[in-house]
Amino acid sequence: MKINDNYLRLKESYLFSIIARKVTEYKGANPGKEVVSLGIGDVTLPLAPVVVEAMQNAVLEMGKAETFRGYAPEQGYSFLRKTIAAYYAAKGVELSEGEVFVSDGAKSDLGNILDIFSTENTVLIPDPVYPVYVDTNIMAGRNIVYLDGSEANNFLPLPDWNIKADIIYLCSPNNPTGAVYSMEQLAEWVAYAREHNSVILFDSAYEAFIQDKALPTSIYQIDGARECAIEFCSLSKTAGFTGIRCGYTVVPMDLVRGGTPLNKLWLRRQTTKFNGVAYIVQRGAEAVFTPEGLRQTKASVEYYMENARMIAETLTDLGIWFTGGKNSPYIWLKCPGGLSSWEFFDMLLEKCGIVGTPGAGFGRNGEGFFRLTAFGSRENVIRAMERLESGQPW
Amino acid sequence: MKINDNYLRLKESYLFSIIARKVTEYKGANPGKEVVSLGIGDVTLPLAPVVVEAMQNAVLEMGKAETFRGYAPEQGYSFLRKTIAAYYAAKGVELSEGEVFVSDGAKSDLGNILDIFSTENTVLIPDPVYPVYVDTNIMAGRNIVYLDGSEANNFLPLPDWNIKADIIYLCSPNNPTGAVYSMEQLAEWVAYAREHNSVILFDSAYEAFIQDKALPTSIYQIDGARECAIEFCSLSKTAGFTGIRCGYTVVPMDLVRGGTPLNKLWLRRQTTKFNGVAYIVQRGAEAVFTPEGLRQTKASVEYYMENARMIAETLTDLGIWFTGGKNSPYIWLKCPGGLSSWEFFDMLLEKCGIVGTPGAGFGRNGEGFFRLTAFGSRENVIRAMERLESGQPW
Repeated sequence: MKINDNYLRLKESYLFSIIARKVTEYKGANPGKEVVSLGIGDVTLPLAPVVVEAMQNAVLEMGKAETFRGYAPEQGYSFLRKTIAAYYAAKGVELSEGEVFVSDGAKSDLGNILDIFSTENTVLIPDPVYPVYVDTNIMAGRNIVYLDGSEANNFLPLPDWNIKADIIYLCSPNNPTGAVYSMEQLAEWVAYAREHNSVILFDSAYEAFIQDKALPTSIYQIDGARECAIEFCSLSKTAGFTGIRCGYTVVPMDLVRGGTPLNKLWLRRQTTKFNGVAYIVQRGAEAVFTPEGLRQTKASVEYYMENARMIAETLTDLGIWFTGGKNSPYIWLKCPGGLSSWEFFDMLLEKCGIVGTPGAGFGRNGEGFFRLTAFGSRENVIRAMERLESGQPW
Repeated sequence: MKINDNYLRLKESYLFSIIARKVTEYKGANPGKEVVSLGIGDVTLPLAPVVVEAMQNAVLEMGKAETFRGYAPEQGYSFLRKTIAAYYAAKGVELSEGEVFVSDGAKSDLGNILDIFSTENTVLIPDPVYPVYVDTNIMAGRNIVYLDGSEANNFLPLPDWNIKADIIYLCSPNNPTGAVYSMEQLAEWVAYAREHNSVILFDSAYEAFIQDKALPTSIYQIDGARECAIEFCSLSKTAGFTGIRCGYTVVPMDLVRGGTPLNKLWLRRQTTKFNGVAYIVQRGAEAVFTPEGLRQTKASVEYYMENARMIAETLTDLGIWFTGGKNSPYIWLKCPGGLSSWEFFDMLLEKCGIVGTPGAGFGRNGEGFFRLTAFGSRENVIRAMERLESGQPW
């Protein structure tokens, strides 16, 4: 019996446990002072009323013999896949129902999709990055090449045509940097992927935060993407579904590698290792895409975006360099005074009682940077920005 | 770019599509006659009232700012893991909260657990079998050794000590045969696994159907199992959760391979590739294990078991050999008159208008056998048994 010893090569992440410990220590040492967190990566506003109503009705249906439903289709109910296809159609992207896969979230699919690819493939991952892209590939023993995000490229790295990668991760709007690729930049990635026969895994989990109509909210808005990209999205941030668990993955019929349509491989993976998403959850997700649902969830997104705007405005006043905040709930700032990520974390906590996330926790290129999020309450954001404006400790 | 070409070695299963086609053809040719299905592998009774109420309340909580919950712990909420541990304690099995992992179902975990094992391991799989055990290992390119179930061993094969296997699948009560291992038989498997340093993947999804108090409902009722077995269970059949999606997997702290606790590996897998089960679903699952929940769900199980008893009684009257039906919703019969699985299927449909599942669809050793299930309505079971008693076509 051998275990998968690739697991032994994984680095333990102590990022959030260290943050928690430091906050606890600070509170212990400063009983009077109240700490404001701008480090939250989770939504805080409740579910939209239309979603609550839809799920309430679905629960009742499951309690009656006439309307009870057993196993759901592994790929998702047709009513939801049609609705998602219509959501894409509204942004100019034509999808067939069979190209949409409903899942329990983008995180699951981003990890599980690797099952259909050879472990011999080389993976290209931007740095800084959502750590899951890296860890899921280390678990499979794949060779990973990193792509440098930096102040110089506004944390929107473009392809290096001299490097050949088989699987490419792109996340736009980006976590942690909040940076968003333009149509032209994504077009360059699509051209690179088609030239190298690579597959782009496009994480669009934050697409609902894009305000600028000129920016792409789906990679399929780029010609040729259907032949080289799989898109992962989720209702977690769009509709506050982090605790409801519903996402969707698009695998176009035109995406063929080694003579095999990847849609067929993913369908086989899902029908073999997955049993579909709860009917109740799928009815809740369907409600998100109704006109009223879109209105209600948009209101929550706008609430978060006003938080982001206030944070961005303050940083601009203070002359601090940052990305994000305009089309993303994340603000990625350059630590002032040449401080390291953790030095800035300590100073911000000590002097302003503000908690954020050290950029160094997201990869080598995150050192010297810092992530703030817009998911807190308005009151906390106002309080935090006042402390920053006045207290500027650096 | 290479795909995972192990997928190309998977056999397409046409079992249920062929059944559907034959039924459609029969209905077309016999417009008057009504078909009764005893082939259903899915529950048909609605959710218990306590579960509906718990989920209704949870939905309302998610709609209010004060009670809204975002990301759930990947391993499951403590309230549910404690409840499941208490359920095991009631059957004499002591588990710590950290040994219980809540998931979206046993099918997902049975497939995903393989992620923590080397692809070089040899897998031992009984035949006939739930096809997912086979396909998930073919996808990973593992060497599979089959274990013969037969009339001679009552489809309860015991270990061949000359064969060394690293990973062993056991399902008791069994799908498709309905056969249940005794304490002594499971003890032999535990002894074999400890001797060969193997890991048993024990699928107890049908444990709630066991009526005979002498039969084990968990492999941990066997001494030593904590050092060699992972148990997978689900609320799908216990509480009609096939469309709700909630299961649980037990990885004991004492289960160590290659110097590494498998609990730690599985926790890392789940925190990296999974984001937990919906709060609403976990509250519904918690309700199943309340005294009232256990009473209500037991009533559904008893309804199905009375169906099974009637089917078993009829087969006994007819002198047809079978397993299951007493501690399982499945009845596995030997096709009378030496008919093949499909010959019997056709005859049963033609002469009695009854639909079942050909045993040949569950593996080589299923040929000549046939699966009936107890998940239908009482009326249909009575009608089907009357037709069998009178019509006996063989």
